[in-house]
Amino acid sequence: MLKLDHIGIAVKNLALAREVYSTLMNEEPYKKETVPEEKVTTLFFKAGDTKIELLESLDQDGPIRKFIEKKGEGIHHIAFEVPDIHEAVRDLKKKGFRFVDENPKKGADRKLIVFLYPKNTHGVLIELCQSLPE
Amino acid sequence: MLKLDHIGIAVKNLALAREVYSTLMNEEPYKKETVPEEKVTTLFFKAGDTKIELLESLDQDGPIRKFIEKKGEGIHHIAFEVPDIHEAVRDLKKKGFRFVDENPKKGADRKLIVFLYPKNTHGVLIELCQSLPE
Repeated sequence: MLKLDHIGIAVKNLALAREVYSTLMNEEPYKKETVPEEKVTTLFFKAGDTKIELLESLDQDGPIRKFIEKKGEGIHHIAFEVPDIHEAVRDLKKKGFRFVDENPKKGADRKLIVFLYPKNTHGVLIELCQSLPE
Repeated sequence: MLKLDHIGIAVKNLALAREVYSTLMNEEPYKKETVPEEKVTTLFFKAGDTKIELLESLDQDGPIRKFIEKKGEGIHHIAFEVPDIHEAVRDLKKKGFRFVDENPKKGADRKLIVFLYPKNTHGVLIELCQSLPE
């Protein structure tokens, strides 16, 4: 079984989305983090054992801005936690999965991340993530 | 805090998607259920404290078929568990949220469900669900 780590939601304006999700979920976000490598600012809400991550693009060229231009605001990806991301990539490649880029990169929330190619996963952009030590 | 109950993924062919997600998640689905009221057949996988629900339309007119025709396969909705769905609807209406249909209906997995209007939630179709007694 894979554990769901979080759901990433692409939004145009983090301040507006923060208000909506704080009201809906009846809680404030517990963390705000900018990830220059991914050109995003993120806000995290707890949701049971998992998290909701709101993502706003840092600039006009970021992947989140491009996603919103193409598809509108909404769910951008879901992420599963794995104990060893390099091993997970090797194992899933053997089983026929492909990756957007198979070299793990630093993401938000102290994690190494990779994205599976969504054409292999019925249209869902799936991230695998491994927590880094504190 | 709201607990994430499941993520619903719209697929064209449940048998094909079952293979992909069984391989990816390294587990078999624990439940298959047809919900005639919603015109879907569903398969559930465990994912930590939450679930992945694959949804295939029962016929040409079902909402899942229409979703796929418009947007392609992919994430259809996310669902949060609430203790009292009627109270949650009343409370969120007061706070300015709107519903696709504010009268809870029977969904899969022994639940009453309603959907929030996605224009109010930054493009995400959000289900609220309340578990029914066994």
